[in-house]
Amino acid sequence: MSDFIDLKGAEQSFGDTEAQREVRENDRNHVFHSWSAQGQINPLPVAKGEGARFWDYDGKEYLDFSSQLVNLNLGHQHPGLVKAIQEQAGRLATIQPSFANDVRGELAKRVVEHSFDGARSVFFTNGGADANEYAVRMARHHTGRQKVLARYRSYHGSTATAITLTGEPRRWTNGTLDSGVVHFSGPYQYRSAFYAETPEQETERALAHLEQTIQFEGPNTIAAIILETVTGTNGVLVPPPGYLPGVRALCDKYGIVMILDEVMVGFGRTGQWFAYQGFDVRPDLVTFAKGVNSGYVPLGGVVISEQIHDTFADRPFPGGLTYSGHPLACASGVATFDIFEEEGILERVRDLGERVVAPRLAQFAEKHPSVGEFRGTGLFWSLDLVVDRETREPLVPFNAAGDAAAPMNAVTGACKDAGLWPFTHFNRLQIAPPLVIAEEDLVKGLDIIDAALDVADGYYTGQ
Amino acid sequence: MSDFIDLKGAEQSFGDTEAQREVRENDRNHVFHSWSAQGQINPLPVAKGEGARFWDYDGKEYLDFSSQLVNLNLGHQHPGLVKAIQEQAGRLATIQPSFANDVRGELAKRVVEHSFDGARSVFFTNGGADANEYAVRMARHHTGRQKVLARYRSYHGSTATAITLTGEPRRWTNGTLDSGVVHFSGPYQYRSAFYAETPEQETERALAHLEQTIQFEGPNTIAAIILETVTGTNGVLVPPPGYLPGVRALCDKYGIVMILDEVMVGFGRTGQWFAYQGFDVRPDLVTFAKGVNSGYVPLGGVVISEQIHDTFADRPFPGGLTYSGHPLACASGVATFDIFEEEGILERVRDLGERVVAPRLAQFAEKHPSVGEFRGTGLFWSLDLVVDRETREPLVPFNAAGDAAAPMNAVTGACKDAGLWPFTHFNRLQIAPPLVIAEEDLVKGLDIIDAALDVADGYYTGQ
Repeated sequence: MSDFIDLKGAEQSFGDTEAQREVRENDRNHVFHSWSAQGQINPLPVAKGEGARFWDYDGKEYLDFSSQLVNLNLGHQHPGLVKAIQEQAGRLATIQPSFANDVRGELAKRVVEHSFDGARSVFFTNGGADANEYAVRMARHHTGRQKVLARYRSYHGSTATAITLTGEPRRWTNGTLDSGVVHFSGPYQYRSAFYAETPEQETERALAHLEQTIQFEGPNTIAAIILETVTGTNGVLVPPPGYLPGVRALCDKYGIVMILDEVMVGFGRTGQWFAYQGFDVRPDLVTFAKGVNSGYVPLGGVVISEQIHDTFADRPFPGGLTYSGHPLACASGVATFDIFEEEGILERVRDLGERVVAPRLAQFAEKHPSVGEFRGTGLFWSLDLVVDRETREPLVPFNAAGDAAAPMNAVTGACKDAGLWPFTHFNRLQIAPPLVIAEEDLVKGLDIIDAALDVADGYYTGQ
Repeated sequence: MSDFIDLKGAEQSFGDTEAQREVRENDRNHVFHSWSAQGQINPLPVAKGEGARFWDYDGKEYLDFSSQLVNLNLGHQHPGLVKAIQEQAGRLATIQPSFANDVRGELAKRVVEHSFDGARSVFFTNGGADANEYAVRMARHHTGRQKVLARYRSYHGSTATAITLTGEPRRWTNGTLDSGVVHFSGPYQYRSAFYAETPEQETERALAHLEQTIQFEGPNTIAAIILETVTGTNGVLVPPPGYLPGVRALCDKYGIVMILDEVMVGFGRTGQWFAYQGFDVRPDLVTFAKGVNSGYVPLGGVVISEQIHDTFADRPFPGGLTYSGHPLACASGVATFDIFEEEGILERVRDLGERVVAPRLAQFAEKHPSVGEFRGTGLFWSLDLVVDRETREPLVPFNAAGDAAAPMNAVTGACKDAGLWPFTHFNRLQIAPPLVIAEEDLVKGLDIIDAALDVADGYYTGQ
């Protein structure tokens, strides 16, 4: 087995300018990149990854504080995941969805067993976007209603319904591809839409705003409310006490399906199997992807309540895909459950978050005037950077690009120069390392961020 | 290496009622299946696959004449694909899309090199549905227009835009999720919408209908026309001479983007790398999935013309996904190109299609009155079954279910009983075996179909 977990080929290419040149050339000539102006990017050729680190072809090492796209929960090249993939590839790489397959059933069982009371089944997809598409479809058919409420400051994926659900600029130029979506504001006390002064007030007013939106849109027209349990890219917004149970109560009151999008926060990011398990709430549908197998094989899914499952007992569910419940993907999902238990991942996430990250970020807030607020949980945190603590004016404007983004680009550059690959969005420096990161690497990364915040402080204009 | 390509574990479970019981139980308890009424299905547990065959847990062997969902072009457990996956898993299973990666770039280069003149780049997706979503999005942004024309008798996937493009019953209960789609009829001479008596007339009238649709919808509002190059599930409809070049000419005349959906027919199914290469036509965008790596790892993509690529040179493309250009998937795509060349796949597809399949289907048409028409190319064929050759009334009604579907269920059952897993749709028995199928297995499968057609003949009511 061990000769498969072999990085020698990649190591040999460090400094190999011919290999690097070819990778760069093929990329620039033939690869069309996500969310990019193709003529304005210069993608870094990556030669190798291991645990919480990766290397470019010049041998420069990066500590990954972004877990790639917040998917690499078990780090690069985890031996247990690699082995599961290699073995399943040798057994049965694929089989179509209408058959019964051992690893598909085993993963569904594990996911359901680790889910909410009343969870019944799993519909597997290729990733998070289609998981959200199908969750919404289930809710529409279950309720016979068409409208879906989603939040501003959210990302739910990029296919037609998913991008319409999304409540941030990536939706804008796509227009309204799914005409049934309405957006509302969630709680975010540091930049409260509700002029709240306490978390309790933020919760109360956010719920009042949601109920008013339901009233104005017509309760009987609303199939679902979809929320990231903890908002991810758009700010690591941890729901204040009572908010999620309050949403649940509104869903119950009006017969609305509650969909929690756990694509980014499921599978340990917050120190729980699913983030909602920290917030005393029972959803109806939960979407996942990324952490389910650290993205080693494309995989996503929807956890389905008994009630919604039963809606499709005698009536066909009108959706499907060739790779639903893909055996190679499912095998790496099963291995993820084993590894989480063997390595005590959830416990270490909670421990490192509380003992190492939170106190250090509190120090940053004292030391660096540019840190307007820090917030987070587990191994998922955000530094909300400002030029003035009084006005809370962000370090760069909302959706800044070009020159306007220069201050954040300087912070990002300082991190990369020092060997840390950061996770930034608008005016925020966020922290989402692999959950297996060694404590000393976590500290080392926080040291690099500490220094980069000096750069942010240089733009501070407040008192 | 060889100990990875190891089916012993699976073989041992033949007749293992405990293993079978567990697979069935986990499936029925926890797996939510595509396109199904969950309480009315009894998925067959599959224990093992090899080449063009798979086995259930009782050791019953099936010749796969459906290539799973027409994706398994290189058959089950092809050693070259398994090796590529195992090696890449050991090197670098995943890296996020914004980096440059060796196998990602290599696969993009190979795809572009085997594509149309003027092909520039590849945007990788997770499958065929999102490939179609993003192709449509590119066309809309490239043209600044919103409307898309798609054909009846088509399937383009199940996410919101893809299912709206789809021109068959799987769309119906989903409503119009993407409001910009308009459907038209393509050529299908056996059941001509245009009362044509020759292929030339069918082409001419189908093109006139398309141009009229363009005129009625407003040429300046239409971003794209999307077509399956050879319609797949909905009938293996091979375009008559001149049709695709005629569509190209209309696209040129009105500034419309031509999208060819090659999810099912790309990568050898028709004996060409891409099916359009047999029809003297140059598309602007081509979508693929399935055959690119036989579905061993979820993968799809869009081949993009230079002109459309350049639209996004200085303007960001507003779309993306976490697993775009997934290394594990791309490695199996690169291996696919190698295997196709080493094994002369395209040549053998053309040879077997012309020498073995076509003459045998011609015999069926003479022998079995229920065979109204046979049509196809390469290793992709359809038998259009009827109860009356004069009226061409189909063996079962369009979208038949329950008792109305009994005649086709009897044909399907006869195939399965005899050890052949068929590919049927409505009144059609279609033929799409893995492209690596041994000639004697192909003949054996055709023998089974020959016998099953006796069952179809039993329902014949014509002269």
